[in-house]
Amino acid sequence: MTSAAHESVTTDNETADRGTGRAIVTDTSVKATFGDDPVAGVEAMADDARVAARALGRATRAWKDRALLTIADRIEHKQDVILAANAKDLERGRVEGISEALLDRLKLDAARVVALADSLRELAALPDPVGSVVRGRTLPNGLRMRQVRVPMGVVGAIYEARPNVTVDIAGIALKSGNAVLLRGGSAAEESNRALVGIIRDSLSDVKLPMDCVQSIDEYGREGANALMAARGKVDVLIPRGGHGLIQSVVQNAKVPVIETGEGNVHLFVDASAPKDMAVKIAVNAKTHRTSTCNTTETLLMHSGFPHGAAVLAALDKAGVTLHVDERAEQLLPAGRQHLRATDEDWGTEYLSMDLAVKIVDDLDEALAHIERWTTRHTEAIVTNDLANAERFTAEIDAAAVMVNASTRFTDGQQLGLGAEIGISTQKMHARGPMGLEELTTTKWIVQGDGHIRA
Amino acid sequence: MTSAAHESVTTDNETADRGTGRAIVTDTSVKATFGDDPVAGVEAMADDARVAARALGRATRAWKDRALLTIADRIEHKQDVILAANAKDLERGRVEGISEALLDRLKLDAARVVALADSLRELAALPDPVGSVVRGRTLPNGLRMRQVRVPMGVVGAIYEARPNVTVDIAGIALKSGNAVLLRGGSAAEESNRALVGIIRDSLSDVKLPMDCVQSIDEYGREGANALMAARGKVDVLIPRGGHGLIQSVVQNAKVPVIETGEGNVHLFVDASAPKDMAVKIAVNAKTHRTSTCNTTETLLMHSGFPHGAAVLAALDKAGVTLHVDERAEQLLPAGRQHLRATDEDWGTEYLSMDLAVKIVDDLDEALAHIERWTTRHTEAIVTNDLANAERFTAEIDAAAVMVNASTRFTDGQQLGLGAEIGISTQKMHARGPMGLEELTTTKWIVQGDGHIRA
Repeated sequence: MTSAAHESVTTDNETADRGTGRAIVTDTSVKATFGDDPVAGVEAMADDARVAARALGRATRAWKDRALLTIADRIEHKQDVILAANAKDLERGRVEGISEALLDRLKLDAARVVALADSLRELAALPDPVGSVVRGRTLPNGLRMRQVRVPMGVVGAIYEARPNVTVDIAGIALKSGNAVLLRGGSAAEESNRALVGIIRDSLSDVKLPMDCVQSIDEYGREGANALMAARGKVDVLIPRGGHGLIQSVVQNAKVPVIETGEGNVHLFVDASAPKDMAVKIAVNAKTHRTSTCNTTETLLMHSGFPHGAAVLAALDKAGVTLHVDERAEQLLPAGRQHLRATDEDWGTEYLSMDLAVKIVDDLDEALAHIERWTTRHTEAIVTNDLANAERFTAEIDAAAVMVNASTRFTDGQQLGLGAEIGISTQKMHARGPMGLEELTTTKWIVQGDGHIRA
Repeated sequence: MTSAAHESVTTDNETADRGTGRAIVTDTSVKATFGDDPVAGVEAMADDARVAARALGRATRAWKDRALLTIADRIEHKQDVILAANAKDLERGRVEGISEALLDRLKLDAARVVALADSLRELAALPDPVGSVVRGRTLPNGLRMRQVRVPMGVVGAIYEARPNVTVDIAGIALKSGNAVLLRGGSAAEESNRALVGIIRDSLSDVKLPMDCVQSIDEYGREGANALMAARGKVDVLIPRGGHGLIQSVVQNAKVPVIETGEGNVHLFVDASAPKDMAVKIAVNAKTHRTSTCNTTETLLMHSGFPHGAAVLAALDKAGVTLHVDERAEQLLPAGRQHLRATDEDWGTEYLSMDLAVKIVDDLDEALAHIERWTTRHTEAIVTNDLANAERFTAEIDAAAVMVNASTRFTDGQQLGLGAEIGISTQKMHARGPMGLEELTTTKWIVQGDGHIRA
């Protein structure tokens, strides 16, 4: 936990055994180094991160990629250490009675460990956003100006108990030249400690400052609060998790935040929608992976669409629980299991096999319903009417608007942006899937020959 | 103050006299329309702004330019109304004893009114950022995706008593497709009311919603607080003014803020700096216009630079009050008037003919001093050493870094970006001069032919 720059990084552990038996770096307590006070501790760690970030910001792409590949190899090599730590988390989670769904997100196994390593290798293969010239020209007075992409500096991340997020965020931060302070959920404490230790050892191996990646988990909830308050010390804070976590960060942080991930997503089936396309997209958008933020939560169907019953039958057959309004109810076979939708349904991001269904009389009613309930994440239309497709894409105010495609495509990988750190639902800085570029800022570099203003 | 979209905007006042005698629209009280409660009033105005923004967001460039040109013409035509209102502000200001400097910023005259109109005509000549495709491609699966620039929506602005800012911000917001809620300083209340009235009349003339531009000044300080708290209703808030105003907004706002304008700017004269260039740039960077945020506030000179005395003599001759450290003191002729610099000087944005001066022994010391005191606005080096120029531009963490050019060039107009709404000193969203593009966000538009995720 020293602030050594890469030229002078301590390499004591270079000579140590890298077998599974060796103690990993963060087994040395953060509190032992920085003291018990969460505010002072987190601020000191942020200062160390700033120094580390300066060295990392000047590292070449080749150097950063070497770090990522080294981490990937070590994660595979240390699989036993990781799985042993994860087993402790799972055991504690079972004792504390956390849900099966959460346990599944928390759980690592051999295949998932390999997937973690592979995600870092994919990251290494992506281009480096740092140093790219966004725009530039020579002004009439001869000044040469260029706007160059540079790392943000120090990034904070607050997320829920998913060990893969630890590796994801650390990897994306490193590739984009940023130091990162991680606050993972306490349920994944042991897993995260093992992973952060492996990452820091690997950084040390390739002579990058270990403090590029630090965990503040030892400071618990108070540490998270200190991170949110560290304006000037942390350049941007990214919350990743459910509604409660994100809103808590957005409301309380003094540090600039990028709001991510809430998706009350609508699919509007227009009167002219081809039957097969409507069925196929509705089923995929709802059932492909229900726990994701780009899953459709409300289906709006035009009253003039003649195949509403077929769409609902297909959804029902796929196991979807339908929450229908009065008119949609009439499209169901008599006696079919269903629920009646209320305003609560229109406002709910189910993240489950539930779907709210409403019949609307025209595009205007669909647009008004969406504007009333949208979280501005993803909205979709299925239509063969060009004018309606144009109006829908122009008038919907959301990060992503789909025409004749599943809402599930709002995803960095799917859209070919590479790695994704989250999906921004705010308008400032980043909107939609955030990749490497979204963790950078720019710097104007202006060169003259003694230019002064007249 | 109706929420009418452009199709149905009231045109009652179309038939009214447009001579100087006619009552202007915002002479109808905001409180009479929205009630006395600042929170409810500002939120209702923000809702109207959202409706107006939707219509404006779909307006063509030609339409928006027509609005700008109409406002420009009317500002000139209504010069008497504007100057009469301004005279009231000036008179009240004198009674209340505000400083001559503030009175000068507040004051309008015939030439300044023409300048206001001309700035809108220049804005009309600039390209429209809305609708430009930031990136786009066809994915391997045949999905067509494009990221398109769209307006933010509703912009808030809180600024000090300068009537020209009212016109600047309203113009930039309109051109970039955003509705704006303005909170000007109370010292410019009458001037701002006249200008906002003229702008709203002009919008009505060209059949754009008047509520694209609204002033919340009647709600005073509590209105400003309500604006800062209106998360979800206001997309971005821009403070423009001094340190106190900006920090108050940054600390208190729940709405995303773009921090602007504080500039504790350094100029470093390296050992190899050509004498004439160092003298010319130092004098220009300090004295060209001292009240601006890109004015140099601290001069750092390398102890090996042989012409330090000449630089200080030139600054002294130009009327600069020097606040020097012990070694810089030795470069002054015996008996020359000066002050000794303290830590307070290193941290002060003078905005006057004062300059702090420090001698450093090498580039590292200069970089460390800057990192300690910078506001990350603009930093400059004068040098003929390529390696030092490269290190300076790489290692300084600021919105703009100048090599052999005056710090005064950090300016939207000077850098050829056109109109400027402020200079961002934060890293998120915008960094450096903010023009039209910085008031926009993006939207992903994805088109398929029934695409689903496998």
